[in-house]
Amino acid sequence: MFKVNENYLKLQGSYLFSNVGKKVHTYQAENPDKKVISLGIGDVTQPLVPSVIEAIHKATEEMAVKETFHGYSPDLGYEFLRSAIAKHDYGKRGVEIALDEIFISDGAKSDSGNIGEIFSVDNKIAVCDPVYPVYVDSNIMAGRTGEYDALTGKWSNVIYMPCTKENDFAPQLPKETPDIIYLCFPNNPTGSAVTRDELQKWVDYANQVKAVIIYDAAYEAYISQQECPHTIYECEGAKTCAIELRSFSKKAGFTGTRLGFTVIPKELVSDGVMLNQLWARRHGTKYNGAPYIIQRAGEAVYSEAGQKETKAQIAYYMNNARVIREGLKSYGYSVSGGVNAPYIWLATPNGMKSWDFFDELLTKANVVGTPGSGFGPSGEGYMRLTAFGTYENTVEALERIKNL
Amino acid sequence: MFKVNENYLKLQGSYLFSNVGKKVHTYQAENPDKKVISLGIGDVTQPLVPSVIEAIHKATEEMAVKETFHGYSPDLGYEFLRSAIAKHDYGKRGVEIALDEIFISDGAKSDSGNIGEIFSVDNKIAVCDPVYPVYVDSNIMAGRTGEYDALTGKWSNVIYMPCTKENDFAPQLPKETPDIIYLCFPNNPTGSAVTRDELQKWVDYANQVKAVIIYDAAYEAYISQQECPHTIYECEGAKTCAIELRSFSKKAGFTGTRLGFTVIPKELVSDGVMLNQLWARRHGTKYNGAPYIIQRAGEAVYSEAGQKETKAQIAYYMNNARVIREGLKSYGYSVSGGVNAPYIWLATPNGMKSWDFFDELLTKANVVGTPGSGFGPSGEGYMRLTAFGTYENTVEALERIKNL
Repeated sequence: MFKVNENYLKLQGSYLFSNVGKKVHTYQAENPDKKVISLGIGDVTQPLVPSVIEAIHKATEEMAVKETFHGYSPDLGYEFLRSAIAKHDYGKRGVEIALDEIFISDGAKSDSGNIGEIFSVDNKIAVCDPVYPVYVDSNIMAGRTGEYDALTGKWSNVIYMPCTKENDFAPQLPKETPDIIYLCFPNNPTGSAVTRDELQKWVDYANQVKAVIIYDAAYEAYISQQECPHTIYECEGAKTCAIELRSFSKKAGFTGTRLGFTVIPKELVSDGVMLNQLWARRHGTKYNGAPYIIQRAGEAVYSEAGQKETKAQIAYYMNNARVIREGLKSYGYSVSGGVNAPYIWLATPNGMKSWDFFDELLTKANVVGTPGSGFGPSGEGYMRLTAFGTYENTVEALERIKNL
Repeated sequence: MFKVNENYLKLQGSYLFSNVGKKVHTYQAENPDKKVISLGIGDVTQPLVPSVIEAIHKATEEMAVKETFHGYSPDLGYEFLRSAIAKHDYGKRGVEIALDEIFISDGAKSDSGNIGEIFSVDNKIAVCDPVYPVYVDSNIMAGRTGEYDALTGKWSNVIYMPCTKENDFAPQLPKETPDIIYLCFPNNPTGSAVTRDELQKWVDYANQVKAVIIYDAAYEAYISQQECPHTIYECEGAKTCAIELRSFSKKAGFTGTRLGFTVIPKELVSDGVMLNQLWARRHGTKYNGAPYIIQRAGEAVYSEAGQKETKAQIAYYMNNARVIREGLKSYGYSVSGGVNAPYIWLATPNGMKSWDFFDELLTKANVVGTPGSGFGPSGEGYMRLTAFGTYENTVEALERIKNL
């Protein structure tokens, strides 16, 4: 008789963004005349840039002709894309990453969910609180988190690193020693960033206690301040302790186009076993690569025109971030983030619960945010707003919030 | 101190097709003047059909304009694609599959590798021998297979169902009761098919012992004989015991375009838990959908023109299969498959080992096959040849084999 993975049964409710989506869907169905503006899920709204569109058309034409048709992709992804990544994302920042340390994938969500698979179940994870739900949920599914305490909203075998107003939303080195540390900078959901010096402390710590850092840099393209590193490998010693996850979703508007990559340096070794080799084996066995035409689309992001166009798009979103941040501040709200990240972290007024404020925003202002409590217990009393709307919608949403 | 997943260290050598690729690469590098013809890895060679190309161009133009841009896909995939699947792959065969029983993915390799995750580690799997390596390898990674015996080439906790000349390459119901049964029809690698009556026996058996069947129907589009079912749900009772995996790779030449889907009926329940819900949760948490433009490409496969064009492509490959099968037979080889599948299963001459015959074919005929032993112990002494080459190459390869 077959038995299911009982760890799945421990999952609390359904995935945060699905819940938000359902609530919005229900409200909209009951109020078809209302124009709901979403500053909720981190989905982009601007179209793919011209260089990317051109590259997709060109690659599609290749797929239409026998002589230039492409079947299965190489296990790690096409060299043309890995070369562009190595050069632009790393080489230009003085970081040397070999082509076989880069694994092309369909996105950072898949990679951050799947990466745990190359680690023993007997590792203790540390996560920021609040945190992107996938890190914790994928570890619940793997059976690494222990039992859930409904009272505290915490898992018995997870080390939480609170990011609160008190510590300026920056995680502190944990008291208990973890085996795997999830870090995300610029941060989702708080929008906070890390300086090179602060991140160096994490790298030194991980090397000292022989922990591995899973570094989610999905939002690095939004960094505006010089002192914030774009990759963890700007820190000395990071290659012996850190895996880096990257995404084209926010860098180039690929949320519906699906492309990302993971870097695992060959120096990252445990008992003589290279994590790079384990991940290569997973890629070879359980994945068949991103589509050829999408990999060509990714390459186009690094062309001269592609860089210029995607930078303009990011500037557009970061202008929205400024509108939200400054608007909310001027209405008396307490906000952070939005400087090196497309996320604004908003303290709810009068200590309201996150979901209550979500309901108020939805029903009274027809604006969708993401409840901070969905990201972890320390997110209670906060709301995440994103800068990914259109400028016009963002301005209108702020006007509505002003009149709340 | 972090610890790796030690199950990964049990994996034998690297992935079969990577090994074949490396051998061919080395030979070609040393013999740049030789024209090597691959009848090895099951990769298609014909370009995407016009309807699909047109759909990709059109969807790409949508992605270029704000008003028609698509961000994140719905968790299960776009309804337009799931509707087309429900109608054409199931409804037309008298099988009713609901839209929320269909999960769009990037391909059957990912799904067959990941599906094990929703099951307890404490399930015993049964596989055909020989078998597509992903089924066993992904279970090794999960810790379900026990220990490897180098002498027999078998895992201690796996039930093997030999498919040999003696049983006409058809697996028999196992003596020991399994929890999870992997079946693939039309079969990779032997090219054998199953009749509706034979498959019904498996469905009845699974329901009786409460096992789940993971039914890989990636090659269903190649079925030519009326008595062979295109989906396991043509069998009575299959909805309470079977998960079906499907792929566009061979149906429409999508090996480099990446699209597939998995069907999990809501009737498939264990102790009140719907497998459908577990897989939905995995999709929501660890995956972000296939690209919009690729889902539109998949939809185009079901258009009137798309069906006509892809059927012509399959006929082209099946003509190659006929050339290989009849050619080899006329040279005195013992062959099977190639009637309902693009694979021909060839007994090596004079009881040669599979890899020895691989080397002989490569170096003397410059033809690449896939060693049968790579698919399991009962594959020793066989070679898999595929019909996915061009007609000209297939004819030339056969001519060379004739002169061996």
